Amino acid sequence: MPSREQHDRMANAIRFLSMDAVEKANSGHPGLPMGCADIATVLFTRFLKFDARNPHWADRDRFILSAGHGSMLLYSLLYLTGYEDITLDEIKNFRQLGSRTAGHPEYGHAAGIETTTGPLGQGIANSVGFALGERIMNAAFGDDLVDHYTYVLAGDGCLMEGISQEALSLAGHLKLNKLIVIWDDNNISIDGAVSLSDSTDQPARFAASGWNTLKIDGMDPEAIAAALEAARKSDRPTLIAAKTTIGFGAPTKAGTSKVHGSPLGAEEIAGARKALGWSYEPFDVPADVLDAWRAAGARGAEAREAWEGRLAKTDAARRAEFERRMSGKLPQGFDAAIADYKKKLAEDKPKVATRKSSEMALEVINGVVPETIGGSADLTGSNNTKTSQTKPITPGNYGERYVHYGIREHGMAAAMNGLTLHGGIIPYGGTFLTFSDYARPAMRLASLMGIRSIFVMTHDSIGLGEDGPTHQPVEHVAALRAIPNHNVFRPADATEAAECWQIALETEKTPSTLALTRQNLPALRTTYVEENLCRKGAYELAAAEGGEAAVTIFATGSEVEIALKARDLLQGHGHPTRVVSVPCLDIFEQQDEAYRKAIIGKAAVKVAVEAGIRQGWDAVIGSDGIFVGMTGFGASGTIEQLYAHFGITAEAVAKAAEGRLHG
Amino acid sequence: MPSREQHDRMANAIRFLSMDAVEKANSGHPGLPMGCADIATVLFTRFLKFDARNPHWADRDRFILSAGHGSMLLYSLLYLTGYEDITLDEIKNFRQLGSRTAGHPEYGHAAGIETTTGPLGQGIANSVGFALGERIMNAAFGDDLVDHYTYVLAGDGCLMEGISQEALSLAGHLKLNKLIVIWDDNNISIDGAVSLSDSTDQPARFAASGWNTLKIDGMDPEAIAAALEAARKSDRPTLIAAKTTIGFGAPTKAGTSKVHGSPLGAEEIAGARKALGWSYEPFDVPADVLDAWRAAGARGAEAREAWEGRLAKTDAARRAEFERRMSGKLPQGFDAAIADYKKKLAEDKPKVATRKSSEMALEVINGVVPETIGGSADLTGSNNTKTSQTKPITPGNYGERYVHYGIREHGMAAAMNGLTLHGGIIPYGGTFLTFSDYARPAMRLASLMGIRSIFVMTHDSIGLGEDGPTHQPVEHVAALRAIPNHNVFRPADATEAAECWQIALETEKTPSTLALTRQNLPALRTTYVEENLCRKGAYELAAAEGGEAAVTIFATGSEVEIALKARDLLQGHGHPTRVVSVPCLDIFEQQDEAYRKAIIGKAAVKVAVEAGIRQGWDAVIGSDGIFVGMTGFGASGTIEQLYAHFGITAEAVAKAAEGRLHG
Repeated sequence: MPSREQHDRMANAIRFLSMDAVEKANSGHPGLPMGCADIATVLFTRFLKFDARNPHWADRDRFILSAGHGSMLLYSLLYLTGYEDITLDEIKNFRQLGSRTAGHPEYGHAAGIETTTGPLGQGIANSVGFALGERIMNAAFGDDLVDHYTYVLAGDGCLMEGISQEALSLAGHLKLNKLIVIWDDNNISIDGAVSLSDSTDQPARFAASGWNTLKIDGMDPEAIAAALEAARKSDRPTLIAAKTTIGFGAPTKAGTSKVHGSPLGAEEIAGARKALGWSYEPFDVPADVLDAWRAAGARGAEAREAWEGRLAKTDAARRAEFERRMSGKLPQGFDAAIADYKKKLAEDKPKVATRKSSEMALEVINGVVPETIGGSADLTGSNNTKTSQTKPITPGNYGERYVHYGIREHGMAAAMNGLTLHGGIIPYGGTFLTFSDYARPAMRLASLMGIRSIFVMTHDSIGLGEDGPTHQPVEHVAALRAIPNHNVFRPADATEAAECWQIALETEKTPSTLALTRQNLPALRTTYVEENLCRKGAYELAAAEGGEAAVTIFATGSEVEIALKARDLLQGHGHPTRVVSVPCLDIFEQQDEAYRKAIIGKAAVKVAVEAGIRQGWDAVIGSDGIFVGMTGFGASGTIEQLYAHFGITAEAVAKAAEGRLHG
Repeated sequence: MPSREQHDRMANAIRFLSMDAVEKANSGHPGLPMGCADIATVLFTRFLKFDARNPHWADRDRFILSAGHGSMLLYSLLYLTGYEDITLDEIKNFRQLGSRTAGHPEYGHAAGIETTTGPLGQGIANSVGFALGERIMNAAFGDDLVDHYTYVLAGDGCLMEGISQEALSLAGHLKLNKLIVIWDDNNISIDGAVSLSDSTDQPARFAASGWNTLKIDGMDPEAIAAALEAARKSDRPTLIAAKTTIGFGAPTKAGTSKVHGSPLGAEEIAGARKALGWSYEPFDVPADVLDAWRAAGARGAEAREAWEGRLAKTDAARRAEFERRMSGKLPQGFDAAIADYKKKLAEDKPKVATRKSSEMALEVINGVVPETIGGSADLTGSNNTKTSQTKPITPGNYGERYVHYGIREHGMAAAMNGLTLHGGIIPYGGTFLTFSDYARPAMRLASLMGIRSIFVMTHDSIGLGEDGPTHQPVEHVAALRAIPNHNVFRPADATEAAECWQIALETEKTPSTLALTRQNLPALRTTYVEENLCRKGAYELAAAEGGEAAVTIFATGSEVEIALKARDLLQGHGHPTRVVSVPCLDIFEQQDEAYRKAIIGKAAVKVAVEAGIRQGWDAVIGSDGIFVGMTGFGASGTIEQLYAHFGITAEAVAKAAEGRLHG
């Protein structure tokens, strides 16, 4: 345990690295690292279980910097404690193109960055997933292998965001007592004093959802340590409200919004050096301080070795399973189970909604993939996300596989990201597609991080019927396709649903959204083929007959049935017509030119049919192609009324195509 | 005041209309209307100030059904109290195509539907804007003209959504004491008992943000009345936690999730008729009950007449201004002010960021349009949303014109919708464009409702630089364009910014998003023209020289400068090139075929340049057109590094065009 003087010098090393890096970059946020340096020093030197030289150790404590703009706090800690990824050169290259030290912490840039933060509230919501993931893995593998804490540093912004309420109320409900949130209570936001916009008693709010709450002087090391000690013993998650001074040490700007997000300037930094008795050059950390920090970074080596010893002694099958799950690889038997299931589907030819065929696929998947954790934002019976294997996780009982996330779409998606990032778990969670808008910021982060969160979005068009335009997605499929590195699947029948699930599970570095119908759809793929035809995003489902195709109809999901009926009409009128099913336009667009050209084909008339907007389809059918879909919001009515009213029918498709053929 | 027996019969009329309508539609949510019929009856017969035959009376109390799925409660009330829009036939046509009685209450379908609800949490967040709007208009026009309450009925879903926290913490901070939220505390959500997913002490949560809280038996008329009396006298907003039984009266399903969102079935309804002593046929409301309800609907006529008397006696200019503001028409002098400002810009040729030129335009606008209310989600200095005229609204002082919304993008957007819907106010509010994702569900509802909320979204591309990919919008412009009836403006210089603001303010039935740069841009429009060139969405900014255009470059915002430089390069190489500025692709797509064709032109090579994704541009440049923009997420670095790294440069545009010309 460092002496007070040593503590201060260690904390000041964070402060000056942060000031200096922001100054050199001429961009960044010095205020948080300066205000929270004491908190971070106590946490990293006395509590956090980690081994900087073995940063991927599965049973490490997780530290989540929810207030991601304070990235220099994290980078300083990673450099000081000896993470190899973050060298002093990286610190000096803060915020420069190609550096690991991006403006905000980016998952994948360096070990020790457990999640990407910056969009406020995401980190604290991820942390619910991290903490729940720890308990789930603990239930599966025991204290010997899984027993760690999740520590979060959150700012006023994180707590003002609505997602924080979803996160804390879920964590409080589930009694995730190994989740410890430290709130940097500095009274300052960008516009000025927090009192400009908020008067909330935050501890009272957390207490209202069953949290343990503590209030401390966040610049007093012993108070910080005592609070962390108490938090670790709590039977509930803990909020530590830590009063700090933003930009502590800056002689004229400390305690004001001026120190939040801009370089301090040479004069102010010189003043800080004087005030804090720090006589070293920029980026110069004296040897005694660096040594002390490096010792802190090696503190956990013994515990890590002991853990490895326990792992080595674990029953071989159990150990292999733990390692497989943490590696993210699917179990053997997965492909065979999908193949068997596809054979059965080819025989059964079920006429069911794709939300139902998703459930049927999940019943198979959950039987062979023990790491899936299902859930729904209070639409379990509608999203069909629950199978025979997934019983609810309840407060204190984490040995099951289903999360009742509550009416918290955003918190669900962010918690799913945390579950994924924790390791050992593949989460999927459901809501209505129209409410993907609520979850979108977290879904985007899944894409940016490149992680396998799987979003089950049902009621995917006007096909949901009477609930009306608030509940009818029109632009959502296009808007989700717009997110880079996000696969949006819209299967057309039970076989495609199985294949799309297979791809979603196999794709480790891209999150998936499955857009699924409320309404029943016939089986369209009635012959078993081993190949996953959805794997290239689009394929020819029905060839033209009687000559070269005059018309090609592209369709997704529920509209593939309409496309096939339109083909029948057109063939009947002597127009050879092919149908291309496009279960995933995102993947199709990534195929090579030759495949794309072959699938798009040379028919004079190209039609796309999708019960959504046209945006994105011109790339396939051309700007002169025919689109049959929506041009505005939906309406309340029966599904039959709505498809007729909006003209999404086989007759409309055939008529439009013939108009063009004759035109 | 109705006797208890009369009260019960009036409440039962709501219950049976709701049961019968859901049964006939074979779709809908009977549980809430049955559980909340007592609350609604007390509110509408004894408290709510309204006149059913004059439903647009400006000083009426507002009733917001935040739990929009309980729409039959509202439709029953509107029919029973005598709103002309909701006839018994409309009740019988519940959820049918073309009816006013959509699945969820749709703003514009009928008077008395103050806002569109259904996506949970939106209504309660709108209500903050309604209540704030009342106070703002009261400050401007006095108690004689503006003095009413905002009543909200919210369910567990509304309170579990994160947006509720943003809404309640803002309302508590601003001490909006005329906001009264009744929470239908029925312990049931769709998945089952609320205790499956939540353990929050909701009154404690509200109290933590400065609310008055009351707990009552929500099925006891006198308790309801006493609570409403107390709430109306509070100096803080009030939450009334009202214990109810969902589906009250249903003999076997009451108090369970089975009664939430499905028809009860003939047998259960028969049992309810027996249990509640209701011997009438479906849709039959006995004369005594209907008479009592109609009398309740006329209760406010006297108050309305008195108010009209006060309005008539008001000073003519003040009265005209009140009526103008409530009508939504802009003041005289607006166009002239914009024209003068454009003349000045043509002379000054300022080189400023469009976030700054937006501020400059707002300085002009706010000087002549007193009904604008500015704000930002804690990015005031970055969004440039504050002008000399807009000082902060503070708790208890509503006579100013700026709202520090706090770090609450979603709550801000929803509150803006409430301000718009209240009438008399044009709200604009800012955040970073990347955080439009947080606000998106409310922005969509602005589009669906067709209301004039104006979203100021700055830092609109990789041009924001070092903050990195979390903060760099890439897909957001495309994703917002995807929303029907939503104009996304991306002005290229100060003159375009002024013109886009002019259009946004003039467009009463479509919300607008202004996407604005962080970085400086040169003046491109240096000659004054009276015409608003942005009004058709796209226009030729620079013609081809030396022959028919071989290349047309389309660009928006910050990339128009790049397009013009690329034109210089191409012209220098002998390729006649024109540049089309596209400040609003949404509006351009609505122009007639002739204008679209003329602007798109016949150049062999078409290029679009936008620092976002391609999606949507194929409609302009064709699927074989050249797109220079982003294909994935951004990165942390300086703006110069990033534009070079991602190849969004004049040289890249010229090279790609020449490659095609020579290819």
